[in-house]
Amino acid sequence: MVSLSTTTTAPGVRQQRKAARLAAAAPSLTARSGKIVDPERITALLQSVLLPGDRVALEGDNQKQADFLSRSLARVDPGAVHGLHLLVPSLSRPEHLDLFELGIASRVDFAFAGAQSARVAALLDEGVLTIGAIHTYLELYARLFVDLVPDVALVAAVQADPDGNLYTGPNTEDTPALIEAAAFRGGLVIVQVDEVVERGALPRVDIPGDWVDLVVRADRPCFIEPLFTRDPRKITDVHVLLAMLAIRGVYERHEVTSLNHGIGFDTAAIELLLPTYGERLGLKGRVARNFVLNPHPTLIPAIESGWVESVTCFGGEVGMEAYCAARPDVFAVGPDGSLRSNRMTAQNAGLYATDMFIGSTLQIDAVGNSSTVTEGRLSGFGGAPNLGSDPRGRRHPTPAWLGLHTAEAGSGVLRGRKLVVQIAETYGAGARPRYTERLDAVAVGEKAGMPLAPVMIYGDDVTHVISEDGIAYLYLARDLEERRQAVAALAGAGPLGTTSTPAQRERLRRDGVLALPEDLGVRRTDARRSMLAARSIEDLVTWSGGLYDPPSRFRSW
Amino acid sequence: MVSLSTTTTAPGVRQQRKAARLAAAAPSLTARSGKIVDPERITALLQSVLLPGDRVALEGDNQKQADFLSRSLARVDPGAVHGLHLLVPSLSRPEHLDLFELGIASRVDFAFAGAQSARVAALLDEGVLTIGAIHTYLELYARLFVDLVPDVALVAAVQADPDGNLYTGPNTEDTPALIEAAAFRGGLVIVQVDEVVERGALPRVDIPGDWVDLVVRADRPCFIEPLFTRDPRKITDVHVLLAMLAIRGVYERHEVTSLNHGIGFDTAAIELLLPTYGERLGLKGRVARNFVLNPHPTLIPAIESGWVESVTCFGGEVGMEAYCAARPDVFAVGPDGSLRSNRMTAQNAGLYATDMFIGSTLQIDAVGNSSTVTEGRLSGFGGAPNLGSDPRGRRHPTPAWLGLHTAEAGSGVLRGRKLVVQIAETYGAGARPRYTERLDAVAVGEKAGMPLAPVMIYGDDVTHVISEDGIAYLYLARDLEERRQAVAALAGAGPLGTTSTPAQRERLRRDGVLALPEDLGVRRTDARRSMLAARSIEDLVTWSGGLYDPPSRFRSW
Repeated sequence: MVSLSTTTTAPGVRQQRKAARLAAAAPSLTARSGKIVDPERITALLQSVLLPGDRVALEGDNQKQADFLSRSLARVDPGAVHGLHLLVPSLSRPEHLDLFELGIASRVDFAFAGAQSARVAALLDEGVLTIGAIHTYLELYARLFVDLVPDVALVAAVQADPDGNLYTGPNTEDTPALIEAAAFRGGLVIVQVDEVVERGALPRVDIPGDWVDLVVRADRPCFIEPLFTRDPRKITDVHVLLAMLAIRGVYERHEVTSLNHGIGFDTAAIELLLPTYGERLGLKGRVARNFVLNPHPTLIPAIESGWVESVTCFGGEVGMEAYCAARPDVFAVGPDGSLRSNRMTAQNAGLYATDMFIGSTLQIDAVGNSSTVTEGRLSGFGGAPNLGSDPRGRRHPTPAWLGLHTAEAGSGVLRGRKLVVQIAETYGAGARPRYTERLDAVAVGEKAGMPLAPVMIYGDDVTHVISEDGIAYLYLARDLEERRQAVAALAGAGPLGTTSTPAQRERLRRDGVLALPEDLGVRRTDARRSMLAARSIEDLVTWSGGLYDPPSRFRSW
Repeated sequence: MVSLSTTTTAPGVRQQRKAARLAAAAPSLTARSGKIVDPERITALLQSVLLPGDRVALEGDNQKQADFLSRSLARVDPGAVHGLHLLVPSLSRPEHLDLFELGIASRVDFAFAGAQSARVAALLDEGVLTIGAIHTYLELYARLFVDLVPDVALVAAVQADPDGNLYTGPNTEDTPALIEAAAFRGGLVIVQVDEVVERGALPRVDIPGDWVDLVVRADRPCFIEPLFTRDPRKITDVHVLLAMLAIRGVYERHEVTSLNHGIGFDTAAIELLLPTYGERLGLKGRVARNFVLNPHPTLIPAIESGWVESVTCFGGEVGMEAYCAARPDVFAVGPDGSLRSNRMTAQNAGLYATDMFIGSTLQIDAVGNSSTVTEGRLSGFGGAPNLGSDPRGRRHPTPAWLGLHTAEAGSGVLRGRKLVVQIAETYGAGARPRYTERLDAVAVGEKAGMPLAPVMIYGDDVTHVISEDGIAYLYLARDLEERRQAVAALAGAGPLGTTSTPAQRERLRRDGVLALPEDLGVRRTDARRSMLAARSIEDLVTWSGGLYDPPSRFRSW
């Protein structure tokens, strides 16, 4: 147990507390070095270094999970360690929620909940956990440096040496941000690794050992989820149609060179149409050159066809390791030859250095607000609100950004604007209309006692909406009423769609606010899966020259 | 000279090129290690590793300058090395511009020009340099990871060991961002240091040696400018008045806890009024707790009075080293006990984790757009556009942010808003009105052929304007016309001010869009320098218990 001596000579309270934590950890160290923890004693160590109410940054990332540490934390005695305030980018593991049921933790600030979103909502409802706030990733990292400074950071790396130098490998992700926030503020940094190697044997150093206090070898490699693998088999003709509309009506029209793609099947279809449809349109080299994106397997054909200058990665993707390593002109790689990712720098790159965010949404309201929240789930935001917002501090011009310029009357002052494109088919699963007068998120937010509804992207930031019925160029809408009409024109036969009249649609088309597929030279009958550069995971493996090694659950041959 | 063999087995063009650069550097290395360059040979080395047209990230930060490397670069033979594309956060050194006059460089992307702003404008006019774009800091870092990837990075640190591990000390600033962008993309990283020490002798490791290719000992310590030191002697009664208005009408009214201050004398006055005026108002602990700020000496009295929970620093400040080291609960410090700064993380913190940006401006137009650009100078943006913009991707609520909420009709969807406060006295130097119908920046931008006028902060992002005449709560203005009236009401006796009528001002006051000093309980006659917690640099030294060691030019006792 940590004991705080008042006679210590350390200059600050946080540093005194850290010295006491390190002293409490000493009995759990191995003889090997002053930083290596005996894995058998990890739970005892956590129990001895943590104080009730501590702020604990726990690496739950979008993909990588410090699951040995989170499982070990769930085994401490709640009588000794309780009321922790967890700071977790992604609440993804069952034990993350166990911590609250056991009373070990009581409060959480997070960005994304994913697979645990229903349980988060239930535990909040039962009063078992309280939520500080739900953030986007970059926003949560920002607060770790300001008003949510961690007392302890529990993170994951691939390898460490006895001095605590870390190799984080292709899935570096959030590790540098979580460690830096703690290491320079008297926080205790504890890292699980797959392996401890000798001095000088790390493939590369991603984090200096100076920033790391304790290292423990995990019982098994840290959990990594292949979140960004989309099987081309599941891409439908409708996805192909949406992708064709996007390519003609957005990529080509606005000369979009730098961009981020969401993880839906429609953007996967875009990736797979670039080397076929895009090539026929003569767009190679003119659009879609610089991606801020995880290493999507569906991007392989475009890369192999010479479309892609660079991909800047938030994280890695299971199975893409050898492929990325073999394409160092496209991906960032370290001196060891493996991918370097970094979610903090990539989120910043996506915010300030890309001209477009394009992604699918589950629900969109009459004025273009969108959300992926559904009843009974608190799935959080992840990165989309950051990527899908207009960065008003941006000052460098590009043709795409300048093309959406706005000016305030009389000031002589123009500004450009980021393209924020939402793709929403008229109907989602269960033939439920995706276009709705009011977002479900409004009711969910009220029920959860949130001060604001959990909106993913606000309507006033959305510049384009795409459905099978065409594209709404919302940035050209003169007022809120015209924006409503343009959204309704895409909404199909649902309640919102029936408010759209033929006369409105004609006027919107005439004013350039609405484009139907025929206005863009896209024939619905041409939209066929056969246009995809790859129609299966196996095709992607072939495109990669055998370098892509898909996880077994994606193998069907 | 770099020669590119086509028979190399390296997997990518960038890596092949890097291998060739390293081979070309070999004759300039010392016997000590494979990374240490003979300082006498640095110009020869630069000439041998650089290719015409290379993108070179040169550390020019806001404060710290890799000046040994920039001076050495200016001595290469322009016949061998020419047409470089410089990526420089801050064009601050005379030799930065010499590079263009000599033909060594021809194109530049930057964020700030400062002392060289007039020469940048002149060289642009003469066609000696071309500007890619002018950015904010965070935006430029973002592009280094996407479409402006450096081929070579020339940066500065305090110490290195023979393996290239770096100690960047209190002024870490932009170094990690510039190095990371190059190191993982086959860029060559060359670092000047004040000292090369033995293995294990670095006070701490800020950058792993793996990210560093070559190290050279500089002829003298790298240049660091004390940009954030404001002598309290120069704070006038008017600054005190503006500060009192800000504290009552903004800090207190909106319960602003997390914030960034500009570098003007009015915000310095705010810092020095917190322990006096702020204390009397009972605001301690309620406002101004978490700062994202360089270590401003004028913040010392507030820190010593217990107002400040945390300061997150972009860079250091000359003379503040020992003070910061002695206050590790407030400042981030490393295991060596000295300040850790990081401009990339701090700019992100300022964007997403603060409720308010408040700073002075030189000129403000009728609808609230502001700029520090004046005729004949291209001073760039620095960090203000990032800090002084509404981050539309933000999702966590605070009382200050929620209090400025806006809603779009009918959607049931609210969002909060960042406070962006501009302080502008009615008149600037030479009795020139600061409030003007049109910004000088519009003409400057047109003359320089810029696609957009160099606006620092756009009027639609500004929530409050403060002059001696009161505060305009622009976020409450119902339309552009009301915003114009509110700005004009603060403009004093100049051309814009005379458009304001008593009837307008009465209506604005009634609607809460305008507050006069008396509406805020501020008496002009109370605004006296005697209220400042420190009235001289010497006072600040005393407050610091002798820890603050001001640069000699600020010493007057």
